[in-house]
Amino acid sequence: MPEYKVPLRDIHFVMSEMLDAESHYRSLKGAEDATPEMISAILEEGAKFTERELAPLNQIGDTQGCRFEDGKVFTPEGFKEAYAKYVEGGWPSLAHDPEWGGQGLPESICTAFSEMIGSANWAWGMYQGLSHGAMNTLEAHGTEEQKEVYLTKLVSGEWTGTMCLTEAHCGTDLGLLRTKAEPNGDGSYSISGTKIFISAGDHDMAENIVHIVLARLPDAPAGTKGISLFVVPKFLPDATGAVGEANSLSCGSIEHKMGIHGNATCVMNFDGARGFLIGPPNKGLNCMFTFMNTARLFTAIQGLGHTEWGFQNSLAYARDRLQMRALSGAKNPDAAADPIIVHPAVRNMLLTQKAFAEGGRALVHYCAQLVDQVKQGTSDEVRQEADALLSFLTPIAKAFMTETGFEAANHGLQVFGGHGYISEWGMEQNVRDCRISMLYEGTTQIQALDLLGRKVLGTQGESLKRFSKIVHAFCQEAEADPTVREFVAPLARLNREWGELTTSLGMKAMSNKDEVGAAAQDYVMYSGYVVYAYFWARMAKVAQAKLAESRDDAAFYTAKLRTARFYFERILPRTRTLSETMLSGADNLLALDADHFAF
Amino acid sequence: MPEYKVPLRDIHFVMSEMLDAESHYRSLKGAEDATPEMISAILEEGAKFTERELAPLNQIGDTQGCRFEDGKVFTPEGFKEAYAKYVEGGWPSLAHDPEWGGQGLPESICTAFSEMIGSANWAWGMYQGLSHGAMNTLEAHGTEEQKEVYLTKLVSGEWTGTMCLTEAHCGTDLGLLRTKAEPNGDGSYSISGTKIFISAGDHDMAENIVHIVLARLPDAPAGTKGISLFVVPKFLPDATGAVGEANSLSCGSIEHKMGIHGNATCVMNFDGARGFLIGPPNKGLNCMFTFMNTARLFTAIQGLGHTEWGFQNSLAYARDRLQMRALSGAKNPDAAADPIIVHPAVRNMLLTQKAFAEGGRALVHYCAQLVDQVKQGTSDEVRQEADALLSFLTPIAKAFMTETGFEAANHGLQVFGGHGYISEWGMEQNVRDCRISMLYEGTTQIQALDLLGRKVLGTQGESLKRFSKIVHAFCQEAEADPTVREFVAPLARLNREWGELTTSLGMKAMSNKDEVGAAAQDYVMYSGYVVYAYFWARMAKVAQAKLAESRDDAAFYTAKLRTARFYFERILPRTRTLSETMLSGADNLLALDADHFAF
Repeated sequence: MPEYKVPLRDIHFVMSEMLDAESHYRSLKGAEDATPEMISAILEEGAKFTERELAPLNQIGDTQGCRFEDGKVFTPEGFKEAYAKYVEGGWPSLAHDPEWGGQGLPESICTAFSEMIGSANWAWGMYQGLSHGAMNTLEAHGTEEQKEVYLTKLVSGEWTGTMCLTEAHCGTDLGLLRTKAEPNGDGSYSISGTKIFISAGDHDMAENIVHIVLARLPDAPAGTKGISLFVVPKFLPDATGAVGEANSLSCGSIEHKMGIHGNATCVMNFDGARGFLIGPPNKGLNCMFTFMNTARLFTAIQGLGHTEWGFQNSLAYARDRLQMRALSGAKNPDAAADPIIVHPAVRNMLLTQKAFAEGGRALVHYCAQLVDQVKQGTSDEVRQEADALLSFLTPIAKAFMTETGFEAANHGLQVFGGHGYISEWGMEQNVRDCRISMLYEGTTQIQALDLLGRKVLGTQGESLKRFSKIVHAFCQEAEADPTVREFVAPLARLNREWGELTTSLGMKAMSNKDEVGAAAQDYVMYSGYVVYAYFWARMAKVAQAKLAESRDDAAFYTAKLRTARFYFERILPRTRTLSETMLSGADNLLALDADHFAF
Repeated sequence: MPEYKVPLRDIHFVMSEMLDAESHYRSLKGAEDATPEMISAILEEGAKFTERELAPLNQIGDTQGCRFEDGKVFTPEGFKEAYAKYVEGGWPSLAHDPEWGGQGLPESICTAFSEMIGSANWAWGMYQGLSHGAMNTLEAHGTEEQKEVYLTKLVSGEWTGTMCLTEAHCGTDLGLLRTKAEPNGDGSYSISGTKIFISAGDHDMAENIVHIVLARLPDAPAGTKGISLFVVPKFLPDATGAVGEANSLSCGSIEHKMGIHGNATCVMNFDGARGFLIGPPNKGLNCMFTFMNTARLFTAIQGLGHTEWGFQNSLAYARDRLQMRALSGAKNPDAAADPIIVHPAVRNMLLTQKAFAEGGRALVHYCAQLVDQVKQGTSDEVRQEADALLSFLTPIAKAFMTETGFEAANHGLQVFGGHGYISEWGMEQNVRDCRISMLYEGTTQIQALDLLGRKVLGTQGESLKRFSKIVHAFCQEAEADPTVREFVAPLARLNREWGELTTSLGMKAMSNKDEVGAAAQDYVMYSGYVVYAYFWARMAKVAQAKLAESRDDAAFYTAKLRTARFYFERILPRTRTLSETMLSGADNLLALDADHFAF
């Protein structure tokens, strides 16, 4: 039976020792409650909740899946009860505005909790994840009345939310969407159309579901400039705000899919359902994009969750499973064979998972602090700077953490040999569940275009320079310290190369825009490796400093240093390939006629 | 609904145009029947059978899976009927000895057919694949009587076979196995023990199942030197050779697993089952290893099958699905969007699949010709040379083709965006089915050790030199041709570097044997990329020659050249990372204490 234990020690390392959460929270407006004691208490309670209530349901969720009967969705055994405890514990309201019942804590505390939820049981976690999406939308763009009616219920967790974007013929290309919104004349709209891939679109965990729906007004211009945003509840609230009559919408079916079986992926039919405009007409996409960073970071956390889960379980197996002897001689001579953790190949798979998990955790928490600054920074400058940095790092985090998360989940499976393929060990579920993360919230390819085309070249490289300067400053400061030179020197080289590669690509793109698409995926992965190198170098520096200070926790800090070395020597050389392929030009992709791919 | 069409044109290119099958068959002993007409006829019939009978059952097999009821296994709808047609068509006997009812055709014809079966429906294909394993074992090591009784029934397809190796506590490390064989005093043995992961261990497709079982005699030495091989039928043949009384063995359960649901993975309980020794006592592992190359090549073909299947279906989708505009301007201005094949990122995924499929096909058929030479070569020298080359190439083919097969299957899924995650499209099944190929028949890590430790360093580099010389000879001959210089020059460089890297690793291994384990996986993947580069350069040369000769099929040959360029510019640079990481030393893997991976 697979298990999950929250890596509290490492979360503490990242949040407090590397990112100095205490100073960070003091620098924010209205984060007085986020004291170190408060944060510790929340993280410890979060660990108990996720380990005890969610992790044991992960395999059940996969095996049972959701059922669709008589137009209703039933979640797997225990999901509903766990949700009730989540509401009871006040977890939905953590980072929301006290005006609507929230606890007003900084978003970054939620991030740590999201990692725990995501590692313990991602399919369950999506029900509350989508609710936060709906909450963020209403918080940013809803009217006072909409907040009163819907947001308070979402913040309390009594109701849950969804995001209804995709239609059968359009996922990436939302400009093609057809769902219609006709004014009813009383300020409400009549919404008609079919949405697909609606995660948590129906379920039995809450009494009402608040759908945030993209649709077109009658006079809307074609394409992305004619899309508006609506709140469309499953049950219309009555005058007291309680659940009233059923709206004209229904779940048509649920998808059979590779993984995340515990989460219902619904076809949602809106048949003249009553909805209410959120934000200005035809500005729906802009409204959606205001919290896109948060949604994408949440998906990046999925990559981290599957990495951590697979790492923990494959580590336990590698210590336990006896098979063959170490090539350099028996390490466990009293038994018939050595534990497989003696084999370099197994260690390579474990260390890759570990390096990705801890590197990812560092990036995610760094981004989470930026989210805090965007929301609660004390000056426009701080807020804008944080927003710009976050916009740059988000596609990297989303693409890189989900791609490496899938790689890591596969290493976890591989450590088990043939047993990894058998369902009872849970490793194959981890791979299947993880696979969706590279597809939704914008595929890896879309993130790549967003990074290189929009964020980097679209700002004439400004966004990259902003981050590169931070890396450069770190390198300059750390350069003098011989104990971290092995990390700082290659990091400084790559930081320069990153800029040079960007310049070269910018030149190419001027003569052929397809060069952007041809290079983007290599570029986003390259960027990910460099960003992790920055965090691994920072973590190594903290570890060295701690070791110099005292012998407390020396094993932990030594492990950090050795993992950093592993990252620099075994993972970072992947940039050698990417720097070459990204410059190889669009022609090797475009020359082949579309009709001549197969004969 | 996913579809599969046998790539006959490309199979013809590889077999006839690149590898000159006609001369090859003429060079063999007793391959007179393998005329070009005969081969074409077999391939075309094979295409019909696999496209019409097997491909339509692939999704059914996944959805229904095998059922285990009252100790019996029932295969998915249609599997049994397809097997009957397979037997009726004489397919099982293709390459077996006429003395036992075979058609005596060279093995390489089976290879082409295996690709078709494997692409169309791998789970179904395993039933006959395991039978071939049992047939090869009996053919090589069985007594005349065992051949008469068992082999003839296997060759006709009336009975099927299995290979019973793994036990719960030992997969890779067969030295630990515990199944016992006690002599009954009448020449037979009483076999007791439990085997797991027995593919096709029970089913409803044939009237009898012939198990080849590894077990220990009472006085056997410990470890791998005390293992013997037995034939243990499900039903004991009566005096006429027909199915007689049931043997004391049973299927205990079937595994729930990630994929290949249509194939039954059985726990097999032997409770004093009657068995008969094959080959000398305590030489069971040696007997098994005689056909290990064939079994591993069959698994390499699985990588090819999933690559081809995923390529075909994602190509169809990429031509059909309209989404977004090309960055360089609309390509399909009359419709609302361009087909996604216009996007460089999508082409990158398609071309990667294509390059892996066609490169893998070339390698597999090259190896198949070596198998022919081992079996039917006209001199000891030819046979030994072929065997040595095959031993070197087999772990590369197995590891590299399954690793890249899984990568390719994932690209296929990714082309579909979110739809790839939905079961009905079949792309996620392709990924799940493919995943086992890196685990069974020796994991990638085991292949890697076999290549670097046993095959290369264990022969002081002789095996590598043997292949390198072939590559070198090709480069020297092709060097003069300016039309293929872009391929030949980098190939020659890599061929040299391959030798240099091997020397460096050999030096390191002399002081620390763990250096072998630490470098092996990078080494096997590096080797794979260079081997494919050799075949891509050869294919490019053939294509250039054909284009110079006439304009017939010019589009086909031009596509070959463009794919070769894609391979060299976008895939081959992966060697830049591997050449660096494989030399990074064992210390970055071994330094971390086994107790300090997590805190």
